[in-house]
Amino acid sequence: MSAGFSKVAIIGLGLQGGSIGLALREALPDLATTGYDRDAATRARAAERGLVGHVADSAGEAVAGADLVIFCVPLGAMAAAAEECAASLSPDALISDVGSSKVSVAEALGSVLPNHAIIPAHPVAGTENSGPDAGFASLFRGRWCIITPPEGADEALVARLSALWEAMGAKVELMDAAHHDRVLAVTSHLPHLIAYTIVGTASDLEEVTQSEVIKYSAGGFRDFTRIAASDPTMWRDVFLSNKGAVLEMLQRFTEDLTALQRAIRVGDGEQLFDHFTRTRAIRRSIIEQGQDVAQANFGRDAS
Amino acid sequence: MSAGFSKVAIIGLGLQGGSIGLALREALPDLATTGYDRDAATRARAAERGLVGHVADSAGEAVAGADLVIFCVPLGAMAAAAEECAASLSPDALISDVGSSKVSVAEALGSVLPNHAIIPAHPVAGTENSGPDAGFASLFRGRWCIITPPEGADEALVARLSALWEAMGAKVELMDAAHHDRVLAVTSHLPHLIAYTIVGTASDLEEVTQSEVIKYSAGGFRDFTRIAASDPTMWRDVFLSNKGAVLEMLQRFTEDLTALQRAIRVGDGEQLFDHFTRTRAIRRSIIEQGQDVAQANFGRDAS
Ligand SMILES: NC(=O)c1ccc[n+]([C@@H]2O[C@H](COP(=O)([O-])OP(=O)(O)OC[C@H]3O[C@@H](n4cnc5c(N)ncnc54)[C@H](OP(=O)(O)O)[C@@H]3O)[C@@H](O)[C@H]2O)c1
Ligand SMILES: NC(=O)c1ccc[n+]([C@@H]2O[C@H](COP(=O)([O-])OP(=O)(O)OC[C@H]3O[C@@H](n4cnc5c(N)ncnc54)[C@H](OP(=O)(O)O)[C@@H]3O)[C@@H](O)[C@H]2O)c1
Repeated sequence: MSAGFSKVAIIGLGLQGGSIGLALREALPDLATTGYDRDAATRARAAERGLVGHVADSAGEAVAGADLVIFCVPLGAMAAAAEECAASLSPDALISDVGSSKVSVAEALGSVLPNHAIIPAHPVAGTENSGPDAGFASLFRGRWCIITPPEGADEALVARLSALWEAMGAKVELMDAAHHDRVLAVTSHLPHLIAYTIVGTASDLEEVTQSEVIKYSAGGFRDFTRIAASDPTMWRDVFLSNKGAVLEMLQRFTEDLTALQRAIRVGDGEQLFDHFTRTRAIRRSIIEQGQDVAQANFGRDAS
Repeated sequence: MSAGFSKVAIIGLGLQGGSIGLALREALPDLATTGYDRDAATRARAAERGLVGHVADSAGEAVAGADLVIFCVPLGAMAAAAEECAASLSPDALISDVGSSKVSVAEALGSVLPNHAIIPAHPVAGTENSGPDAGFASLFRGRWCIITPPEGADEALVARLSALWEAMGAKVELMDAAHHDRVLAVTSHLPHLIAYTIVGTASDLEEVTQSEVIKYSAGGFRDFTRIAASDPTMWRDVFLSNKGAVLEMLQRFTEDLTALQRAIRVGDGEQLFDHFTRTRAIRRSIIEQGQDVAQANFGRDAS
């Protein structure tokens, strides 16, 4: 079985592209995969790790004859990457991607490749690492992949793309692109922004040294440093491309923070207690639904 | 060896008290330990788990004959717990605690027990769990314990208390109580406040359902739900008792967040990129210094 495609081209061989290549090889060994990355060192490393069946020397070579092309580059590079492929694409090739925001990607790919079927996707699975050494075959296992077919998309193509993600272990959900961008603004983009902010705040203090911040980070701070170590290019692009939804969620967050700040200032213990009680329930559901581990401290301090 | 004490009484048999009891039994089997908790069910469970050598039926019984008493109750309960013990305390008993803020605890214990030596301490080690089942012997291993001796404290007593914490695997640092409260405001209290806030924000949205927030939490949000599942009583007390330092750090955080918000609004990619690059370094140091694991996603998604 080849999930309905015979040759998949992966453009961008970092965490996402590499994981897709490895997951496809494991799940669908008969499916041909090719890949390209603009960085020669990344291409060399990708070939060494066998991230795809064939690492091509140009984007055009990678996509030639492919019936599915998946763009796995930062959001701001989607249009340029598509341009590099345009002339060599088979007219029937389905175009997809893994970008973290979807309205802007659909626009970017659509303007460069107006005559191709484009069905964007976003696997809600990642780590704080990037580059050709970061990918692993099980990244998508048990995670959701959100597919955002444009209006009037060919249902058979959507089904084939869904089947491919399912073959890699993902659970698929179809969603409107604008709604996707709102959902991810709160579940991913705002958390990253907050983490980047607080890590910056802690680094800049004068009365508390950086070495103290590091030493005593096990009190909670260390959790935030993980996502604040994520790739700066990727995250810059996320905030620029999902600006509206991020600013909207940030506004809500700021209002809620102001309310808790006031409760602290006036010593309203009851309000604090009620708020802190309410937020516990959601953790339980996340664990029950397999989206996190149950062990204390994510299991990392297990003896 | 018994680290200079012959009988240690632990008041409050939850995560901290239980972990101390278990760690002491492992490290110093000859040291006598007693314990008390106001909750009968907790006492019963503590006895079952053997958290201390003897679970007493009253605070007075627990502290009788002890040369060290460690209060392991929520910050708001420190004074009441000390009052319950006062009449039965040996005059030579050293008084200590594990409270997460130190200026207010020193005041609370000092006003109830004006004639005792009081040397507060705070192990920077915890999990999101609480209660008599949460403790484990290795909680303090490789973590810092900050001891905040008041001015003029007996150095021999400080040394004995330090040795006890070191026996449990902790690294000890002496610090001024007010400075402690500033350091922990940024490394622990602010992160918890932010996490509690964002989890609340995400729960209250109308356009994104709670079930969507849970499903797609692997994009970053799930990290925050861990600490936002921590005990509401404990954290209410932390914010009320370390109000000044928390509000000060929150002010800085808000300023930094406003600057990043502005960068997003005006599309200043360079500022975002620079900020996100700066915050990566601190993660590396935390890992190098053994305060977190190096694996992607805290190792929790390892295949
Ligand atoms: N990381 C996550 O957690 C995560 C999760 C879900 C979705 N995503 C999305 O996945 C996409 C890729 O992210 P990633 O984490 O895989 O990043 P990554 O590890 O940095 O990989 C991206 C790769 O694309 C290359 N590239 C950039 N421009 C290119 C171009 N024009 N043509 C060919 N290759 C190009 C980069 O090379 P250079 O190093 O030379 O720039 C890099 O090797 C992004 O759109 C991101 O939003 C990420
Ligand atoms: N959790 C952490 O990560 C962490 C880290 C470092 C320091 N600390 C500090 O450690 C202290 C204890 O926290 P914890 O996490 O161990 O909390 P915990 O698991 O909830 O344990 C506290 C125990 O104290 C009991 N208690 C309350 N008032 C009492 C009283 N007057 N006399 C006797 N027992 C009483 C509680 O009983 P009830 O359940 O009936 O109230 C509970 O069993 C707090 O001051 C906290 O700031 C916590």
